[in-house]
Amino acid sequence: MEEIYRKNGGEVKEFKKFGGEIDVGYRIEYEKRITEIDVQMFGLISGDFNPVHFNEDVAAKTKFGGRVVHGMLTTGLVSAAVARMPGLVVLLETYFKYTAPVRIGDTVKVVGEVVEKEKNRYRLDVRCYVEGKVVVEGWVKILSWPEAG
Amino acid sequence: MEEIYRKNGGEVKEFKKFGGEIDVGYRIEYEKRITEIDVQMFGLISGDFNPVHFNEDVAAKTKFGGRVVHGMLTTGLVSAAVARMPGLVVLLETYFKYTAPVRIGDTVKVVGEVVEKEKNRYRLDVRCYVEGKVVVEGWVKILSWPEAG
Repeated sequence: MEEIYRKNGGEVKEFKKFGGEIDVGYRIEYEKRITEIDVQMFGLISGDFNPVHFNEDVAAKTKFGGRVVHGMLTTGLVSAAVARMPGLVVLLETYFKYTAPVRIGDTVKVVGEVVEKEKNRYRLDVRCYVEGKVVVEGWVKILSWPEAG
Repeated sequence: MEEIYRKNGGEVKEFKKFGGEIDVGYRIEYEKRITEIDVQMFGLISGDFNPVHFNEDVAAKTKFGGRVVHGMLTTGLVSAAVARMPGLVVLLETYFKYTAPVRIGDTVKVVGEVVEKEKNRYRLDVRCYVEGKVVVEGWVKILSWPEAG
């Protein structure tokens, strides 16, 4: 599947863990380009074929002025970002506000910072940017287990 | 891509809009089976290759006892569910708490109910179930534009 994805213009990201030790103030950054194949695949796996994502004619008549990326595809990059933190990471809670549209071809940058810590549970404030503009803001709570040896 | 998805065991959902008129009390239901191909594709499009989703050996050592589906893949079905509501639907905000693991092969059922309405903005309480067990609970805020004619 990876080969098909790559051949269709998908950006395959290496799964490289971030270093350091998680504590309040720990910061993460992660970015990925979202292309046509991503929107097609997200449509299939979710079943979300909303015309605002797939039909240029319909989307052009909205205030977006054209097709936009699924909000939850954009925030999927947050999942990928926190998964790169030290330990084996599990999502507990997420809150996101979608503040601006993301277009097919945009590179989304996720920036997060740990703002609370309770044992091995952490809360991060999160923002997603496209060319410096905030497209998503919110927070996530995660659990990080020591890597199983 | 749809043919590749289907041949690899993916469940292709028809995009059929729900009827009626949205108001407080409006209920939605949507379900989809999550298979191996969904986890593979979600990994590629997000870049989230967390071993808890991909490496049976690593995942078996956790309290999950084996691989689990990405939480954000599960909640992607909420996006698909609200997209089927009347009008052209856009996500504004989402809050989710992941309460139990979802396994590859599980069928996830999304149930939502409109609990607040302000002009064409709606808040829905949402739950995702696997075989009657709550795996996700939360809420979403959406906007519904009249369908562009």
